[in-house]
Amino acid sequence: MKHILTTLILSISIFSFAHAQTQPILNLEKATKIADAAQEKAISESWNVVISILDQGGNLILLRRMDGTQIGSIEIAQLKAKTAFEFKRSTKIFEDMIKGGAVHLTTMPITAVEGGLPIFQDDVIIGSIGISGVTSAQDGIIAEAALKATGFM
Amino acid sequence: MKHILTTLILSISIFSFAHAQTQPILNLEKATKIADAAQEKAISESWNVVISILDQGGNLILLRRMDGTQIGSIEIAQLKAKTAFEFKRSTKIFEDMIKGGAVHLTTMPITAVEGGLPIFQDDVIIGSIGISGVTSAQDGIIAEAALKATGFM
Amino acid sequence: MKHILTTLILSISIFSFAHAQTQPILNLEKATKIADAAQEKAISESWNVVISILDQGGNLILLRRMDGTQIGSIEIAQLKAKTAFEFKRSTKIFEDMIKGGAVHLTTMPITAVEGGLPIFQDDVIIGSIGISGVTSAQDGIIAEAALKATGFM
Amino acid sequence: MKHILTTLILSISIFSFAHAQTQPILNLEKATKIADAAQEKAISESWNVVISILDQGGNLILLRRMDGTQIGSIEIAQLKAKTAFEFKRSTKIFEDMIKGGAVHLTTMPITAVEGGLPIFQDDVIIGSIGISGVTSAQDGIIAEAALKATGFM
Repeated sequence: MKHILTTLILSISIFSFAHAQTQPILNLEKATKIADAAQEKAISESWNVVISILDQGGNLILLRRMDGTQIGSIEIAQLKAKTAFEFKRSTKIFEDMIKGGAVHLTTMPITAVEGGLPIFQDDVIIGSIGISGVTSAQDGIIAEAALKATGFM
Repeated sequence: MKHILTTLILSISIFSFAHAQTQPILNLEKATKIADAAQEKAISESWNVVISILDQGGNLILLRRMDGTQIGSIEIAQLKAKTAFEFKRSTKIFEDMIKGGAVHLTTMPITAVEGGLPIFQDDVIIGSIGISGVTSAQDGIIAEAALKATGFM
Repeated sequence: MKHILTTLILSISIFSFAHAQTQPILNLEKATKIADAAQEKAISESWNVVISILDQGGNLILLRRMDGTQIGSIEIAQLKAKTAFEFKRSTKIFEDMIKGGAVHLTTMPITAVEGGLPIFQDDVIIGSIGISGVTSAQDGIIAEAALKATGFM
Repeated sequence: MKHILTTLILSISIFSFAHAQTQPILNLEKATKIADAAQEKAISESWNVVISILDQGGNLILLRRMDGTQIGSIEIAQLKAKTAFEFKRSTKIFEDMIKGGAVHLTTMPITAVEGGLPIFQDDVIIGSIGISGVTSAQDGIIAEAALKATGFM
């Protein structure tokens, strides 16, 4: 009897766990904190950039264009975030691969320029950040600083 | 004395000249204030929306998606802002015209749904706001509240 | 006397303030002068080109296609102007970077072919010019000649 | 002998004419005259518009945006000209048909708003004009005035 009850309770809890099937999410509060950290870093370096953040579904949750940033960065920041999200890796990895000879990768719908980083929580992707406005290396520095300052790296 | 007056007149005329050859702008600080006012209104009504703001050139300067907002609103908010900017009028005007029988206007590349408003300063367009997420009438209430709270209406 | 000085200082400070909150613009008169200079240079070299000019918001203000110009240049001239505007630099810079090995830049939505130049006034971007029709080096010569002849370079 | 020569010359010239198979064209000079006439009419009415002209192939040959014109008119003026060219008729005809109940026409890729007119020479279409910026009726007045002033209507 005891054994049956134990089995039953165990079954229910396993069932509940399996049924829950949730994913961690990136809400506006978290995105705002990440963007604030990015902006703070940019200001401290006197750099002007667009900050773009996607959520766990790869959909835009926040975009900010700092004064004086080149207009082209509005699209580039989003494209970097898109590539980082869609391939769960830094856009710099693709940049390095293409620079290293993998030119065929330019035929993929990716933006292979540093400045895009995926955002992970408990090893699950919950979004991405894309920075554009200064050199791509500087864009990358801002993206990394933003994730480190908010505990996502 | 004469010299000072001459300088004064010169200053004024330079000012006038500069004014004729320049246009007022919408920077990130102003856009943030408008977005904050929009978000405050949305929260007070328990509505979830995307807030999108374009600058004096019609280029995106800020976007925020409140938690729980339908994903389609990311694009719609930007399209409403685009239409309000490009035609210097509320998107509701187009909505009302089409509802009133001007069905031919649907062949134009516009988004004729309430929730988009142009932003004026000294009778010059300096940007626009687009809200999407709840009913279009409610979207419009948020857009108007945001501009009124920040002195742009 | 004191009053006049006060007024004067006030005028200047208002002027400065206005300047900070405004941006210089490229109107049709200026655009026409630039296009006329471009066309004059093209005629003097017996070259046929499309001349495309964007304003301070990146929006098309003028386009002219000289007789006999290849049709593809209608779009290319606009795309060169777009890239020059959006990234505040000559499209030749991107062309040279990619030729020099930065192949990953081809994954960005840019037109990296000489013939597009940003137009600056008081160190602020007020538009751009895009030329297409002959060789890209010749397109670049026309763009540069146009800006030099009109005092923008 | 004279008769034979005359016949021969006549034959050659008829043959040449038939063989030539040319079409009348709209060059930049004609397009400029039409645009000047449109702009003159607009100025006389204190209206701000975009003037767009396509050639005998339906390709853009000239575009001018008058100061203060709404940005959306850049695209609309071109779309009106495209519809007028592609269907060899005034865009007002489509507007009237849709207003009159032919709502199904909105599913066609046309811009059914007054302000677009085809340009004919010897009963052959050689291009089109599209005007946008004021009311569509006023846009139409400018388009018509431009073609009448230059002998194309």
